[in-house]
Amino acid sequence: MSLVAETKRALAAALAEDRVRDGASERDLHGEDLSFHAPRRPDLVVYPLSTDEVSRVMAIANEQRMPVTPFGVGTSLEGHVIPSQGGISLDLSRLDRILDVSPGNLRATAQAGVTRLALTRAAGEHGLFFSVDPGADATLGGMAATNAAGTTTVRYGKMRANVLALEAVLADGRVIRTGSRAAKTSAGYDLTGLLVGSEGTLAVITELTVRLHAIQEHAVALRIAFPDVEAACRTAAGIVAAGAGVTRIELLDAWIVSAVNAYAGTSYPEGPCLFVEATGSAQVVTADLELVQEIALTEGATNVTLERDPDARARLWKARHDVAHAAAAMLPGTKERATDVCVPLTELAAAVRFARAGIDRLGLNAGILGHAGDGNVHVSIQVDPGNADEMRRSDELVNAVVDDALARGGTCTGEHGIGRGKIGALERQHGDVIPLMLAIKASFDPNGIMNPGKVLPTAVAPR
Amino acid sequence: MSLVAETKRALAAALAEDRVRDGASERDLHGEDLSFHAPRRPDLVVYPLSTDEVSRVMAIANEQRMPVTPFGVGTSLEGHVIPSQGGISLDLSRLDRILDVSPGNLRATAQAGVTRLALTRAAGEHGLFFSVDPGADATLGGMAATNAAGTTTVRYGKMRANVLALEAVLADGRVIRTGSRAAKTSAGYDLTGLLVGSEGTLAVITELTVRLHAIQEHAVALRIAFPDVEAACRTAAGIVAAGAGVTRIELLDAWIVSAVNAYAGTSYPEGPCLFVEATGSAQVVTADLELVQEIALTEGATNVTLERDPDARARLWKARHDVAHAAAAMLPGTKERATDVCVPLTELAAAVRFARAGIDRLGLNAGILGHAGDGNVHVSIQVDPGNADEMRRSDELVNAVVDDALARGGTCTGEHGIGRGKIGALERQHGDVIPLMLAIKASFDPNGIMNPGKVLPTAVAPR
Repeated sequence: MSLVAETKRALAAALAEDRVRDGASERDLHGEDLSFHAPRRPDLVVYPLSTDEVSRVMAIANEQRMPVTPFGVGTSLEGHVIPSQGGISLDLSRLDRILDVSPGNLRATAQAGVTRLALTRAAGEHGLFFSVDPGADATLGGMAATNAAGTTTVRYGKMRANVLALEAVLADGRVIRTGSRAAKTSAGYDLTGLLVGSEGTLAVITELTVRLHAIQEHAVALRIAFPDVEAACRTAAGIVAAGAGVTRIELLDAWIVSAVNAYAGTSYPEGPCLFVEATGSAQVVTADLELVQEIALTEGATNVTLERDPDARARLWKARHDVAHAAAAMLPGTKERATDVCVPLTELAAAVRFARAGIDRLGLNAGILGHAGDGNVHVSIQVDPGNADEMRRSDELVNAVVDDALARGGTCTGEHGIGRGKIGALERQHGDVIPLMLAIKASFDPNGIMNPGKVLPTAVAPR
Repeated sequence: MSLVAETKRALAAALAEDRVRDGASERDLHGEDLSFHAPRRPDLVVYPLSTDEVSRVMAIANEQRMPVTPFGVGTSLEGHVIPSQGGISLDLSRLDRILDVSPGNLRATAQAGVTRLALTRAAGEHGLFFSVDPGADATLGGMAATNAAGTTTVRYGKMRANVLALEAVLADGRVIRTGSRAAKTSAGYDLTGLLVGSEGTLAVITELTVRLHAIQEHAVALRIAFPDVEAACRTAAGIVAAGAGVTRIELLDAWIVSAVNAYAGTSYPEGPCLFVEATGSAQVVTADLELVQEIALTEGATNVTLERDPDARARLWKARHDVAHAAAAMLPGTKERATDVCVPLTELAAAVRFARAGIDRLGLNAGILGHAGDGNVHVSIQVDPGNADEMRRSDELVNAVVDDALARGGTCTGEHGIGRGKIGALERQHGDVIPLMLAIKASFDPNGIMNPGKVLPTAVAPR
């Protein structure tokens, strides 16, 4: 009997036959994410219903030296959920129970398969919300694994700042708990922070305790148009440096605004702009937005539009979140390839100028957007993975943008993670500490079965 | 020639003779901290002037299998800087250069021996400050090593939230860099967060890039008196749950207030109280403090005093920071032994009630104070380390308070770290992950020379 058939039989005996699948369509669905990375099917798709079942799956996989790639809802942007070496796709979407919402502690505990919007709906009954917003309705487990961020990070931080405790299953099936339910802890090494952002290469996250935040009384958004993208960047940097308590500062360049207008039917002025949101009491919002306007006008803003009406605000943020769809709609048949470098704010304008010059020089179809308040820049390139020349030019642009960010004291990835596509970039950025990362990997996963081919250049090879 | 003499000669050749010392007074000064832990002299005290010199010291120590205990200014509260197994005390206080203050990025980069007040003075020229305030004027390196927190953590987070990048020297002398100067990164495992809080057991931190924050326009403090300590705790929990943006929420019980009055000459009402501070624009401060008062009065507060005058505020926070001196002054010849458990806010009142009952039952001299907005409780016991019966009773109280906190979903240490005194507590709290911590330790420091006897129960034995 083949290894796969043997593993399938052992898993079916340990779980239930109908939750261990090897049908073609199911394997296809678990062989890709939202990125341009080439799909690759897993051999098996397994649907555990509990931590205990995850533990049994891992023990069997470890025994068989079968790779395991955790899967949430497949919204990863760097190939994390693609089983690079086949094996098991561990679909955690049925671990979908919210175990506790504690308004008195501003906390919730949920299983890894709960999505962020499901948690925010449950928290909303108590006047609270879950703050990390990457756009997609990703699972909390997936968001923790990739240390996700998004539009509200400038105010509330990314996943690592919002995860207090984890339950996770190690490669050999052992169940561990890290962190505590208290607001802070200094009890030994920070394994919670280590697992957050480890992209499924160290352990399978099965349960999380996360921070919740109070829903603010008022929210007002501004659309600010600029004569050039550098002025928009300088404004974003100035807003943060001035300490204005804004919730979002999003940059869109002219290319992106055109795509949005075509896709969403909006008629925003087709030039570089910032979408800024402030939340809080009416007085706080007014004071913050006055400061924002003052900074923007000093930098030469040509138009400032207040979006006070909830529908107009919703339209604005939907347009922002739909940018990937809008860009894809401009060039049917293409896939998005996005950089997510992050630079110090004082370097943002120069980094964006460098990226735009590269796009134009290489003749690529690409727009620039970003979480400007964090210095996080997405060059969103529409590529046809079948076009070798275009792929080569996009490689060249991505590498140049990464090297430029590193030279400015930044990072190759502000939020998408290393995954499959940035291992070379990680070597350029952190070559000196990769031996330490590999040693940590080996101590958590000595047989190298956890999401092999991701994050690290030469992780222990499975089988 | 003895190992110590041989090491001394090698170090003197690598650095300079007058920066490798073995005089009795110098060794005494590096053999204790502010805690009750028994002193132990190092064999040598070494004063490097640069990262390169730290690297040379480590290479020699590693070669000789000589333990190395990093030392800042000796304000540790859990014996971290006491060289439990002798060897080298690595005094980093001469690495005291502030390398960069960047107002546009709200960042500074400084060497490990810079103290927090020195940094805040430099940042103040730009309208900025460094937010982590444990009371003592500790070094940034020491504060990062212990993941320090303090009175302002409820608003600005502890060290881990404020350190963006590190330079550190490994046990074998290799110099590494973690993190980046950007606001966020997802580039591989979070080694920055792992080194923060590792208490000198993984690497020697030599340089840090930290966040700075804007100095707020207005600051107003409230002193609120309560009929009982539980009402004060419920108020603190209520303030946080309501989302009031306060900067500090400090709890002092009647015992502590009496000690403060006797020491500082103040005449605060001698009952349980909260010291609360709000900062921001005048409107924000007013709105936040109205909410605080409303919650306090609902919980039965008997007196609310506004401290708007900067001198009165300074006196209030000085009184709070001098609590350890005040308590010691009540009982001359004693040393402070402090718990620092941290519990979910909804458990705070019950945890404090439990601690007070234990103090009374065991007949100890102790007060309760804490960073109530974080759920962080200090039972501050004045002990005579020579009194075996009192030490036994204090052991019993500390263990009971820790077990109670763990049963409530909390942690044995919110901010002081494990050090020498809480290894047993760490085993009770995180026994399941101690093998992972030991594996990480072994991969960073295979010869076990880095601050042996701290944090972990059975770290690789040196020599």
